[in-house]
Amino acid sequence: MREIKVGVIGAGVVGSSVIKILQENQELISNRIGARLIPTKAVVKDLTKKRDINIALSDDINFILEDESIEIVIELMGGVEQAFEVAKKVLEKNKSLVTANKAMLAYHRYDLQKIKKNHPIGFEASVCGGIPIIKALKDGLAANHILSLRGILNGTSNYILTQMIQNAMSFDDALKQAQILGYAEADPTLDIDGSDAGHKLLILASLAYGIDAKPQDIIIEGIEKINASDIAFANEFGFVIKLLGIAKKIDNEIELRVHPVLIDKDKMIAKVDGVMNGISVVGDRVGETLYYGAGAGGDATASAVISDLIEIARGKNSAMLGFEKSDNSLKLRDKGKIQSRYYIRLSAYDKTGVLAKISSILSKNNISIQAFLQKQAKDGIAKLLFTTHISQESSIHNALSEIDSQDFIESKSFFIRIDE
Amino acid sequence: MREIKVGVIGAGVVGSSVIKILQENQELISNRIGARLIPTKAVVKDLTKKRDINIALSDDINFILEDESIEIVIELMGGVEQAFEVAKKVLEKNKSLVTANKAMLAYHRYDLQKIKKNHPIGFEASVCGGIPIIKALKDGLAANHILSLRGILNGTSNYILTQMIQNAMSFDDALKQAQILGYAEADPTLDIDGSDAGHKLLILASLAYGIDAKPQDIIIEGIEKINASDIAFANEFGFVIKLLGIAKKIDNEIELRVHPVLIDKDKMIAKVDGVMNGISVVGDRVGETLYYGAGAGGDATASAVISDLIEIARGKNSAMLGFEKSDNSLKLRDKGKIQSRYYIRLSAYDKTGVLAKISSILSKNNISIQAFLQKQAKDGIAKLLFTTHISQESSIHNALSEIDSQDFIESKSFFIRIDE
Ligand SMILES: NC(=O)c1ccc[n+]([C@@H]2O[C@H](COP(=O)([O-])OP(=O)(O)OC[C@H]3O[C@@H](n4cnc5c(N)ncnc54)[C@H](OP(=O)(O)O)[C@@H]3O)[C@@H](O)[C@H]2O)c1
Ligand SMILES: NC(=O)c1ccc[n+]([C@@H]2O[C@H](COP(=O)([O-])OP(=O)(O)OC[C@H]3O[C@@H](n4cnc5c(N)ncnc54)[C@H](OP(=O)(O)O)[C@@H]3O)[C@@H](O)[C@H]2O)c1
Repeated sequence: MREIKVGVIGAGVVGSSVIKILQENQELISNRIGARLIPTKAVVKDLTKKRDINIALSDDINFILEDESIEIVIELMGGVEQAFEVAKKVLEKNKSLVTANKAMLAYHRYDLQKIKKNHPIGFEASVCGGIPIIKALKDGLAANHILSLRGILNGTSNYILTQMIQNAMSFDDALKQAQILGYAEADPTLDIDGSDAGHKLLILASLAYGIDAKPQDIIIEGIEKINASDIAFANEFGFVIKLLGIAKKIDNEIELRVHPVLIDKDKMIAKVDGVMNGISVVGDRVGETLYYGAGAGGDATASAVISDLIEIARGKNSAMLGFEKSDNSLKLRDKGKIQSRYYIRLSAYDKTGVLAKISSILSKNNISIQAFLQKQAKDGIAKLLFTTHISQESSIHNALSEIDSQDFIESKSFFIRIDE
Repeated sequence: MREIKVGVIGAGVVGSSVIKILQENQELISNRIGARLIPTKAVVKDLTKKRDINIALSDDINFILEDESIEIVIELMGGVEQAFEVAKKVLEKNKSLVTANKAMLAYHRYDLQKIKKNHPIGFEASVCGGIPIIKALKDGLAANHILSLRGILNGTSNYILTQMIQNAMSFDDALKQAQILGYAEADPTLDIDGSDAGHKLLILASLAYGIDAKPQDIIIEGIEKINASDIAFANEFGFVIKLLGIAKKIDNEIELRVHPVLIDKDKMIAKVDGVMNGISVVGDRVGETLYYGAGAGGDATASAVISDLIEIARGKNSAMLGFEKSDNSLKLRDKGKIQSRYYIRLSAYDKTGVLAKISSILSKNNISIQAFLQKQAKDGIAKLLFTTHISQESSIHNALSEIDSQDFIESKSFFIRIDE
């Protein structure tokens, strides 16, 4: 049986799982592909750390790069620029590359694709861990124009929101609990401010639309400002709140955005709870398909890494980002052009004339109210919660900045888009 | 750009969609694969029928088989033996084969695989239409031992059950409505008696376990006997009723079965409603992943057919059933060995001593009752509805056949397994 030697750069949470699964499920995997995938070497930063993996180790990347017997290199060290440098060297050495590094791909996926055309590069693990969503977009749905894609792409923030919704926890308590359970890092910034979901959305958007955008080009908002009033309002009106990554085709433009949404409780994606991820994809022919599973964790992510090794071993040959020929007719849509219904929370000193003033600012900006809830004033401060009919994002920004400048406003307004 | 000529045998619901999508989404597809997929010929049974497809037609299969310019043949004529004969000829002519024919594959998938080793054969469309579940099992989850797989594999029966549950329709009315909406055929037998789901389960079981079983080897039960009492009981105890195809690994044996189940309302798969399909797969490394989408319909099924064409065009090379080397250590588990909780419905004449007799028969067979509901007697007939603790399937059969032979029994007992 043919032997394929594999080098692993980075043997942390994911890397050590990859090595173990290749060793423990080796017979299953060789039965499936008719070849043996053998992890022969790994590289780490700190050689003195205790590890329970059984493999030759070094802290020098050349240990793997200069080894001609190694055919496939897996990059699992994390970071952006340094990982990109490593990835380039892997390709220059004519080795196949597999990576789980969504941050690096959010910036450099097109750079990598350009280095060597039709050179095997696998990145299934970079989006939603164990869910084979990359293969679904690249192969399974390849006959379809993708009309839209909406995903719960970050397990940490989904866990926090679920705790807030189902167990009435505060944001801070839910975050603490996520940290205790190992669902959130000591520094959870990238998870809760939407950045991590943004990285993944950009990768998916390349597969769906061939569109090259960077994190700074799109709307990325997190879940930090959501509070109990928002959750209660959503519940009252049949919604849940989720952090979604959304890609949508409108004429020849693509809307890309990551932000919390109010979403109808009965939608399938609204039912993706806890630390799980889910992605709904609508194709022009297939209609809606949805994919659900663990988005992170060593073993789930390693399962995806190994599926890439298997595809490479099987000799599958396709362009990294799913397009042999890029279709340049699709452009990123201007952020201000977004149209949506909005949920808005205002906090105002309880005076007469407040409502009249707010209404007049809204109507001047062509925003009409759909549902309204005023919470009884407490300490002289009233909470005004309402939803709008379909409005233009730029009008909402204009109206809210005028409202926020009024002297009766107690604290800055907050809005959440409503997803339909 | 390379041109790949495609022949379509059977231009009915699916075949005509395939031809249209290849023509209408041609630019997208060639951008993706760097080759042009061109449907050049189709074969039908009745040349006099009116069709709105634009392709050369014949009623002679040799029109395609003898055409040396055709590289890929799509079999979409349906049936079992005749389709198998056609498929064999396609392979003998050294053409690649794509099929959506689950009935044929349920009987002949191993025969086909044997004819030509490593010859491209695509069958993504044979299970759950537009959901790329074949690729998920063959590639995406290939690093995993599959612990279990449970699927709502038939949209017609799921539609009927959903109507019964959500709108309190009778089975007959729900079936009639399914027929009016085009979700059920004039003769719906294969959909409601579980056969169609059985065919699909066997295909999935080959991919997950490499296990060769035929429809007659496994339990296949349909939804015809479910009535309003069952639905109401399930609802009362927090369950919904779904027709599931289940494959489960227990030690070195594989349990395969299709039957209605009572399933916890809160499980993700319990939320797959209406005509949609859903499959939950549990891998030893990835945990649970779930796939959801349209299981049938011309365009959704055609989307899957074309994904196979695309894989073939990309030169992917892997064993048809996902295993290069078959793992013969897994055996089909004996039907009587199933262990489950059961829901049981009895209908008895309202006499004294009935409950005592039933209880004694159950306890003699080591079956203990968990929850019990007796409906008030109507016309002297009492309905006894109850669930059991975990019991052996063979004990249930023994107990129920003894109970059914009692003279106080008004009509044959009915049971539904409870899925956990
Ligand atoms: N964890 C998940 O669930 C998950 C899910 C999806 C994707 N990912 C992605 O997978 C990648 C790895 O994540 P992880 O959670 O496994 O990270 P991790 O546990 O922090 O592991 C990183 C590994 O890389 C090594 N490393 C870091 N910098 C290095 C350098 N300059 N030279 C050599 N080795 C270096 C570290 O060495 P030491 O062991 O000596 O510190 C460690 O072994 C990241 O890109 C992450 O975004 C992770
Ligand atoms: N429909 C779905 O949603 C769906 C979903 C998944 C899988 N499938 C599978 O896909 C296959 C096709 O289904 P379908 O719904 O498209 O069936 P269909 O509408 O009945 O079409 C069958 C086609 O095959 C032709 N045909 C039948 N026998 C033939 C023969 N002996 N020689 C030449 N042509 C013959 C028919 O010709 P005429 O047009 O002249 O009658 C017709 O064009 C079946 O295996 C089915 O199980 C269907």
